[in-house]
Amino acid sequence: MNHQILELKVKLANKLADVSGDIIKKHFRQSNLPSETKINEISSIVTIADRLAENVMVDLIKKECPDDGIIREEGENIDSKNGHAWVLDPIDGTSSFVKGLPIFGTLIGLVDLDNNLPLLGCVNQPILQERCLGIRGKATTFNQQTINNPYVNNYDYPLKEACLTSTTPLMFITPRQQEIASRLQKVCSRTAFGGDCYNYVSLAMGWTAMPMIVLESDLKYYDFCALIPIIEGVGGMITDWQGNALNSHSTEVLAASNPNLHQQALNIILNQ
Amino acid sequence: MNHQILELKVKLANKLADVSGDIIKKHFRQSNLPSETKINEISSIVTIADRLAENVMVDLIKKECPDDGIIREEGENIDSKNGHAWVLDPIDGTSSFVKGLPIFGTLIGLVDLDNNLPLLGCVNQPILQERCLGIRGKATTFNQQTINNPYVNNYDYPLKEACLTSTTPLMFITPRQQEIASRLQKVCSRTAFGGDCYNYVSLAMGWTAMPMIVLESDLKYYDFCALIPIIEGVGGMITDWQGNALNSHSTEVLAASNPNLHQQALNIILNQ
Repeated sequence: MNHQILELKVKLANKLADVSGDIIKKHFRQSNLPSETKINEISSIVTIADRLAENVMVDLIKKECPDDGIIREEGENIDSKNGHAWVLDPIDGTSSFVKGLPIFGTLIGLVDLDNNLPLLGCVNQPILQERCLGIRGKATTFNQQTINNPYVNNYDYPLKEACLTSTTPLMFITPRQQEIASRLQKVCSRTAFGGDCYNYVSLAMGWTAMPMIVLESDLKYYDFCALIPIIEGVGGMITDWQGNALNSHSTEVLAASNPNLHQQALNIILNQ
Repeated sequence: MNHQILELKVKLANKLADVSGDIIKKHFRQSNLPSETKINEISSIVTIADRLAENVMVDLIKKECPDDGIIREEGENIDSKNGHAWVLDPIDGTSSFVKGLPIFGTLIGLVDLDNNLPLLGCVNQPILQERCLGIRGKATTFNQQTINNPYVNNYDYPLKEACLTSTTPLMFITPRQQEIASRLQKVCSRTAFGGDCYNYVSLAMGWTAMPMIVLESDLKYYDFCALIPIIEGVGGMITDWQGNALNSHSTEVLAASNPNLHQQALNIILNQ
């Protein structure tokens, strides 16, 4: 993708974050169900916010880049005419959103379908007004500032000093997944649940007092596609549980603050 | 406690939240370990922030109310000379703090020891600048505004429409606790982990799109003392797993958006 087109796409990604953020903010911490919804539809607030935010992003993509495809959480996918597709998750972290905790995020990715290359990724947090932006081959930024992550180039950390995090233990569904998660939990010094996409932002930012491992399963493409350029653009590593590049069929994700830690975690996963 | 003394204590609680918040803010999202700490002391950032924030609160209590006792997380307790004791947890939600997620909180409670009555409770979130304040017999406030929680007076909600939340499944240690948690998870429509004290704030505020249950175990007095006046002051209910009033020896906590939901959850816990 040439420089000029990439610049346009980055601009669009920022616009998508702006327009979806405006809608999501209106629905955050609103306990009262809108009148048109059934009282029994308990998750309706989040569903409505999710759909409205997605629709406004889809409309903008159709208008500005009509040949781009769209892979999304809520509605039907739209085929790409140029090999590029946007991968959208308006509210990643439904439980946090539902609880009124501002650590969910809007995930906006752009992928080169032919080469399975995530070209750019954005995690937007509309309440905290925090935006993490990764562009393939460039340094990841956080609110337009480059990131200084002390764990990325420090390969001395053993896995036992890392913080292991997963959104919920309920995402480990098969006995194999549960066994792998349990093995890693025993090695790492701390296990923390919750967090959703903000675990990956935290890993990229180096906010933690120790390096980080994120181990997750039962994910969809839109749950992690946008995270790949963000983590790689800071020097971290993100793959599937076999150490392979993630693709649209992947469901198991392993991310680490640096490649050395990633390899140590992989060794535990693969029992080597 | 007469009105004038209570007013002084509320003022002090707010001051304690201010001074501890200033310190905690300085240490939030700081990945680099201070030079005086050992590199192996992986949790040192949070430990240091915890201790410094606690010390500054203890100093202020000693100065302004020297007869009050102090029950605290980090240092040694201080005996009460007048039957009142402050119950302090500078950073409740260590994992969130460590990950750089602003959903931890400083818990500040004041208890009448002779009658086991929590007189006031404060959850302060220094990053989000959110302060929830409960005073026994008064309406709970959030940033000085009274709370409009739609679930408190609506007893129509069945337990299956509630959101069940616990900080981590790892807090259910005994087979009995695990079995009870699992039983409640099967009944409630949604289970969400993570959140720490912010789950209780969310319950009090009615931020969720559905009523809420918090089920936790393996807690210390300073983990929940401050939450009691907050939840009760909004019309919610918080007890131990037998339905009894919480005291300094309690470790198992059940909170619900209203007494009806609380009873339904209690019936599941007690297998009735």
